[in-house]
Amino acid sequence: MSTMDIFKAAMEKAEAYAQALPPEPAPFPVPQGAEIAAWIDHTLLKPTATDEQIMGLCREAMEYHFAAVCVNPAYVPLAQGILTDKDVVTCAVISFPLGAHLPAQKAAEARSVLQAGAREVDMVMNIGAMKSGAPYLVYTDIKTVADVVREYDAHLKVIIETAYLTREEKITACLLSQAAGADFVKTSTGFAPSGATVEDVALMRRVVGPEMGVKAAGGIRTLADAQAMIRAGATRIGASAGVAIVKEATA
Amino acid sequence: MSTMDIFKAAMEKAEAYAQALPPEPAPFPVPQGAEIAAWIDHTLLKPTATDEQIMGLCREAMEYHFAAVCVNPAYVPLAQGILTDKDVVTCAVISFPLGAHLPAQKAAEARSVLQAGAREVDMVMNIGAMKSGAPYLVYTDIKTVADVVREYDAHLKVIIETAYLTREEKITACLLSQAAGADFVKTSTGFAPSGATVEDVALMRRVVGPEMGVKAAGGIRTLADAQAMIRAGATRIGASAGVAIVKEATA
Repeated sequence: MSTMDIFKAAMEKAEAYAQALPPEPAPFPVPQGAEIAAWIDHTLLKPTATDEQIMGLCREAMEYHFAAVCVNPAYVPLAQGILTDKDVVTCAVISFPLGAHLPAQKAAEARSVLQAGAREVDMVMNIGAMKSGAPYLVYTDIKTVADVVREYDAHLKVIIETAYLTREEKITACLLSQAAGADFVKTSTGFAPSGATVEDVALMRRVVGPEMGVKAAGGIRTLADAQAMIRAGATRIGASAGVAIVKEATA
Repeated sequence: MSTMDIFKAAMEKAEAYAQALPPEPAPFPVPQGAEIAAWIDHTLLKPTATDEQIMGLCREAMEYHFAAVCVNPAYVPLAQGILTDKDVVTCAVISFPLGAHLPAQKAAEARSVLQAGAREVDMVMNIGAMKSGAPYLVYTDIKTVADVVREYDAHLKVIIETAYLTREEKITACLLSQAAGADFVKTSTGFAPSGATVEDVALMRRVVGPEMGVKAAGGIRTLADAQAMIRAGATRIGASAGVAIVKEATA
């Protein structure tokens, strides 16, 4: 199928799903005890984050066996220098947190963090394009980045920023991300007026089916929060409270 | 002087100014009536901004003779397509709003918006580097972008994000921006917990002296707000309420 055909098929599916969602996928197993660490991206994205805080984040990630550290592009080289445990990868956010870049700009930023060693890229969708009724731009934006990420054998998460989207836009954003070759859809940047909700995670899981990753992020502070997201279909949790969550899980 | 000598001189000045500020510059003339439009960057940076809203912003900018439209990188080509009145330039924000990119990443983003036609670039300082006690990175970050901006005969504003800085860091940020060849220092992104204050604008003006631009942005909604900033030393106002401010000024 051509790129345009793939886009059109995704848009037709979005229209159908807006009327009637596909059946719910079978429930996912919930991690027990310290296992939950492998579900968590240990995250520090504040503009005021210091070298020392990022180094601490990386050391904690290795100690607790989190899936990744999630940092801004400026801190990818530092994280790479600290993460000697190859089980923990560096995840970099791009076009973050507004998503208001052109495809070529996002691709260049993705290439830059991948060259620096990031193995996961969390990009923000072009929210303005979605709101402008320009889904083909939303799709090509994601595909352009996905193609670069694939070159590096890395993974792409697309932040759809649910806080700003209608139900139909959430469905469309998920299906366009999937069609464009993303590995995960992700709820939130943590910089919008609201973060992940159980309802949004359940909707996103149902829309993308059982195979694709779903990352819940934004406002997840306790073990109960994280477990609720996982029960709803999240396979990854973005949180700055990862250590507290694991301690609670193993208490 | 070598780059390192220029940096060192700025840091020495910052230390001296932290103890005793230089004399206040003579007060600036305050614009009368509709003149104030030429002080204003007509701004729309929300991630949800649509094509139509950006086109409206550009048309208003031409109608009211604002200095510039200030938009995210994705919207520079569209703004350029609308702004047929050459008195109004396109200003693009880069590394916005977190500032957490490496110098080469910021330079690439600056080049991209300049190639698309932007004639002003508002970059966010590396706030994390300032907080990490790494002022030389703060300086080289700005200088790297300033060198690109100069190639295009454009202007650079450095957003220091006052909300996160101590008084000493504000002084240092202003002097490093000036030493690195920026044209303006700017208070805020509008995405931090607080925006421009009269006190910060007065401090920034006093530190950089009478020649450099000072842009006040974040939370400026009325004519009184704008006039207070100008009286304190601002030569540019970033606002989404530009039309209301000009209407108030000419009522």
